[in-house]
Amino acid sequence: MKRVMIIAVIGGEEASAEVARLAEEVGRELARRGCTVVCGGGDGVMEAACRGARAGGGHTIGILPGHNADESPPNQYVDFPVFTGLGYARNSMVVLSARAVIAIDGAYGTLSEIAYALIYDVPIVGLDTWDFSYPGHDAERLIRASDPVDAVEKAIAAAGLVQKHG
Amino acid sequence: MKRVMIIAVIGGEEASAEVARLAEEVGRELARRGCTVVCGGGDGVMEAACRGARAGGGHTIGILPGHNADESPPNQYVDFPVFTGLGYARNSMVVLSARAVIAIDGAYGTLSEIAYALIYDVPIVGLDTWDFSYPGHDAERLIRASDPVDAVEKAIAAAGLVQKHG
Amino acid sequence: MKRVMIIAVIGGEEASAEVARLAEEVGRELARRGCTVVCGGGDGVMEAACRGARAGGGHTIGILPGHNADESPPNQYVDFPVFTGLGYARNSMVVLSARAVIAIDGAYGTLSEIAYALIYDVPIVGLDTWDFSYPGHDAERLIRASDPVDAVEKAIAAAGLVQKHG
Amino acid sequence: MKRVMIIAVIGGEEASAEVARLAEEVGRELARRGCTVVCGGGDGVMEAACRGARAGGGHTIGILPGHNADESPPNQYVDFPVFTGLGYARNSMVVLSARAVIAIDGAYGTLSEIAYALIYDVPIVGLDTWDFSYPGHDAERLIRASDPVDAVEKAIAAAGLVQKHG
Repeated sequence: MKRVMIIAVIGGEEASAEVARLAEEVGRELARRGCTVVCGGGDGVMEAACRGARAGGGHTIGILPGHNADESPPNQYVDFPVFTGLGYARNSMVVLSARAVIAIDGAYGTLSEIAYALIYDVPIVGLDTWDFSYPGHDAERLIRASDPVDAVEKAIAAAGLVQKHG
Repeated sequence: MKRVMIIAVIGGEEASAEVARLAEEVGRELARRGCTVVCGGGDGVMEAACRGARAGGGHTIGILPGHNADESPPNQYVDFPVFTGLGYARNSMVVLSARAVIAIDGAYGTLSEIAYALIYDVPIVGLDTWDFSYPGHDAERLIRASDPVDAVEKAIAAAGLVQKHG
Repeated sequence: MKRVMIIAVIGGEEASAEVARLAEEVGRELARRGCTVVCGGGDGVMEAACRGARAGGGHTIGILPGHNADESPPNQYVDFPVFTGLGYARNSMVVLSARAVIAIDGAYGTLSEIAYALIYDVPIVGLDTWDFSYPGHDAERLIRASDPVDAVEKAIAAAGLVQKHG
Repeated sequence: MKRVMIIAVIGGEEASAEVARLAEEVGRELARRGCTVVCGGGDGVMEAACRGARAGGGHTIGILPGHNADESPPNQYVDFPVFTGLGYARNSMVVLSARAVIAIDGAYGTLSEIAYALIYDVPIVGLDTWDFSYPGHDAERLIRASDPVDAVEKAIAAAGLVQKHG
């Protein structure tokens, strides 16, 4: 296979029905545009994004916190689980392995991943997620999206590589 | 020696004169209360906090991102440098090694450390630092302080161990 | 896709023609048996194993030491690069992400990965690789193989899941 | 305080009375020569080395695998515990934080740390520990010592800084 663009989807392990719907649509739209989804491999937003990606014909990578599937079971839509044994220190790897990141909802783990995207200059798109600000620092670097298709299009554009729709 | 309480001071590698003054006073007040300072070991807020801690008669630990002192030189006030070779993935360790965390000013690295403190339930006190919010998540868990002494007292109290002034 | 068994191939960044031939055949045989190859994503044994896996119709995951493709370029046969930014601390992840490990030749990095396989009880098969011993510790837990097919069969058997040939 | 030379002592979590005696003497001799001991912070060789270092008037740093003292309690002779939450991936940090490493006895974790010392060119001295070999790789880079004083002297010499006896 030819290596394709990898985009991260980040968000919480718990997701409302509405948030899960957003994440699933983001995953499906990414796959339809030929992208692979990388995420933390768990439940909630991660599971929904993987389910959508698979429905869209794409691949999914899950970077898990535990040492093995007993300690941190990947959701059933993860094709390629990577076990780190690093706990939440693995969050930076989800971000580093992506050409762009889409944050959906999320809790403190998601906030840490947004921070890593800003640290490492990985483009980051937010869909109904954290607000944050501090004088002198550019929170505007988080690109706001209005819906899943908008998030995917902005992420792919920011990644510098707009691919043609399938 | 008897093991003493370790408190983290987090903040940016660049600090204005005013921010450095705050950090130095935080370090000195921590040392005067018998605490050891742990930080990322670098410049700016980290250096000022270590300088203050040493002036107050305390010890300082620096958890550095690089593999050695050539790659990431500890500031001159770090007594015990720990080299991780992990880059910014070391941020979670600064937080985990502390009984409480004091955030002063700071950039995206500091935001990631605040997030880790919230993930791992390490008490976190903020002195002129990030604002952040998301419906349903308790940003109030970052305790706001008005000045260095207030920050130190709130951190020690939150750590569950108020120690008598020297 | 259905999740398939992931097997690690470990070995040095430099490989003689003979060692590369062994690694390529190991990769191809793994793929022919339906396995995905995980490795450190670099040159030498890693590149040869990925080349073989792709020739055999399989997928390849590379867990890289650097923060991005500029810092540590994946070899051209890696389908899914995961960037860790952890340097050689990423070695334990290659082992943890596999159901069994095949060591071919290799230098000190490979020795560290053999040690991690023994620490974490991941079955480990050696093909022309390190000898090590210490009274009271069971170096015999490294299963010796005589050729690539033998290595692959022993790894899959040890992983507890013998899959039918294509 | 003035920053002093940090030397690592590595070895297993279980130690016979004889091995513990060696480790304790190594710790004491290091402290008498003005060195700080860094180790994994646990039991066995690590505890004995810390006990010796403290008896000799030195400081001790423990780099622990768990997230906190509940998950991985430091032995009672660790002055400065650093919690990583990284499991055995923390092994490389013990080595990186030292100017030289002394390996005593030990199991697979120790073997991984010896490998990291060889990877990162940190001088490594062995006292009754692993043998390993592979054609073309220089296992001789592990310097063999005959007793604790010999190990300490060889480590300090290799670290490039022979300090005067107390």
